[in-house]
Amino acid sequence: VEKNMVISDLGEFGVIERIARLLPAGAADVVVGIGDDVAVLDTGGPRYLLATCDIQVENTHFQPQTISPYQLGRKVIAINVSDIAAMGGRPRWALVSLALPQETPVDFVDELYRGMNEQAQMAELAIVGGNLSKIDHPLVIDLCLLGDCDKQLFLRRSEAQVDDAVLVTGSVGDSRAGLQLLLTPHLRVSDSARETVLAAHLTPQPRLPEGQLLAASGLVHAMLDVSDGILSDLGHICEASRVGASVTLADLPVSQACREVARASRAAAEDWALTGGEDYQLLFTAAQGQVAKIQALLAERTGTAARVIGRILPAADGVTTVAPDGTVHSQSGTVGWDHFRKDRKP
Amino acid sequence: VEKNMVISDLGEFGVIERIARLLPAGAADVVVGIGDDVAVLDTGGPRYLLATCDIQVENTHFQPQTISPYQLGRKVIAINVSDIAAMGGRPRWALVSLALPQETPVDFVDELYRGMNEQAQMAELAIVGGNLSKIDHPLVIDLCLLGDCDKQLFLRRSEAQVDDAVLVTGSVGDSRAGLQLLLTPHLRVSDSARETVLAAHLTPQPRLPEGQLLAASGLVHAMLDVSDGILSDLGHICEASRVGASVTLADLPVSQACREVARASRAAAEDWALTGGEDYQLLFTAAQGQVAKIQALLAERTGTAARVIGRILPAADGVTTVAPDGTVHSQSGTVGWDHFRKDRKP
Repeated sequence: VEKNMVISDLGEFGVIERIARLLPAGAADVVVGIGDDVAVLDTGGPRYLLATCDIQVENTHFQPQTISPYQLGRKVIAINVSDIAAMGGRPRWALVSLALPQETPVDFVDELYRGMNEQAQMAELAIVGGNLSKIDHPLVIDLCLLGDCDKQLFLRRSEAQVDDAVLVTGSVGDSRAGLQLLLTPHLRVSDSARETVLAAHLTPQPRLPEGQLLAASGLVHAMLDVSDGILSDLGHICEASRVGASVTLADLPVSQACREVARASRAAAEDWALTGGEDYQLLFTAAQGQVAKIQALLAERTGTAARVIGRILPAADGVTTVAPDGTVHSQSGTVGWDHFRKDRKP
Repeated sequence: VEKNMVISDLGEFGVIERIARLLPAGAADVVVGIGDDVAVLDTGGPRYLLATCDIQVENTHFQPQTISPYQLGRKVIAINVSDIAAMGGRPRWALVSLALPQETPVDFVDELYRGMNEQAQMAELAIVGGNLSKIDHPLVIDLCLLGDCDKQLFLRRSEAQVDDAVLVTGSVGDSRAGLQLLLTPHLRVSDSARETVLAAHLTPQPRLPEGQLLAASGLVHAMLDVSDGILSDLGHICEASRVGASVTLADLPVSQACREVARASRAAAEDWALTGGEDYQLLFTAAQGQVAKIQALLAERTGTAARVIGRILPAADGVTTVAPDGTVHSQSGTVGWDHFRKDRKP
């Protein structure tokens, strides 16, 4: 690395790669270590331990004007549950680190915990500890979530195989549409569209039963939750699995609500679906011959749809999108959410 | 709670108490939950899982001018290992959440991880994951440390018994003396005193073998590490155990180095020993008849001294100190480190 380099020169994933290289080789009890969203650890017990954490910074991840403390509490639990869901695991215990300005209202803490408790109960996990500190500004919440999984049946990002179908649950882009409405509240859209996209952004629901069902089915090769955006997260699967992929834009599951908000703000709904992020849907790959079976299983047991949006290709093909007119665009190097890139679009 | 109350009105421990009341009753698999430094969890495996986290905020916990990134890395691992040590546990895995300003030098990250790795290797633990985010200012590091312990032989703060002796390992006050030197570097003290107290403050060594030995001995009733200061931490033991205690000031183990720095800055070394904090020594209680055996065991196996500094009393006696002239001072309500109290002394 050149002298005087700063972290925004490397970007978020560049820094993570660098950190991974700085660490000593993995110990025997570390099944999946740094670089993945969730660490998989062997405690010597009957199931593997899962551990993940996510730091939320005021004005970076959330604007206090646009999310209530209650919603924020729900969301910090939900986004970590989503990471555990994407391994097919079971969330169990959370630790909450808070850095709060001295003048934080007690009511903020009450409402934050009301939201966290409510989402924790939905996921059947317990908040068991944490840590409290003063900060001048901004408010920071770091959640560490522990869970467990079957030793054989958990899913990781690195097992995608060439010719696999790429699927995604539910719809993507809604959260980005919700953010757009928060940034420009005077957009003229229907009440139902507004409600749908705001809920997707402010109180996302992790796909926990879906993730557990997919892992237990034994039919899925690789899985990840959509936090950075489909293109970025598919890129993570491709990198870890040493494959490429193509996404057919016409097949992206974009909701009517998302289309309505995109139209009102003269944006392309497909762009939001591809790079918006924070959808917390499951993105996974499976053999083509298993797709119908997986879709039927998900629909029957959880009521959730899963749509085929693309295909895994050899690594040399990179990541591409296919437009409705058939033209192919290389997307290698396209990023979704990256904290440190200065040139990142909002 | 009154309307418009802010968290500095409640204080750090008041907020933690409030949070504990907001949470639902503990689940069956939570052996020790919120309110303790370390959560004790039953994974179904042969040992209990331990989980603790600690958030370090620039300008609240550390000044970038006075601690190098390497030292900071060592310290964030050490202070969490100290919490596991105080249960008699074994540290195993760490997750590191970083909120960094974009202009952070890459070299800072390299040096931080060099320090974390070095301290992690001493404690035989692996860094297995984490999370990276942007922040404008200040830099925040949250470390979540996982470990395990024997299901029978771990120690907690709540088992002190009336008439127990109160003991502490090593010496207390050195870290506070080191802080004093960093704040007023031109104090005239010997090189060896300077080196001793700066090391205590910047690269504290957790008492890991000592903690494990004390827990395995079966001779100790209650244990905690000294992070907030002896008086405050003894207060935590007393509150959890529903007892009182008295501390004999003349018996506090204060090093020559600490005395020298205190003298040069016209402060009372005993005050630093009582309320300075960040000593990361072990504070524990045991039956009077076991003291000699415990001291011999520690000296023989670890080379570490443990000094009797007081006695556990009935709850009604509160926490008191006994001055060299025999006068008794009530210390109930005296606090050490509290993040949110506006009236806290530096």
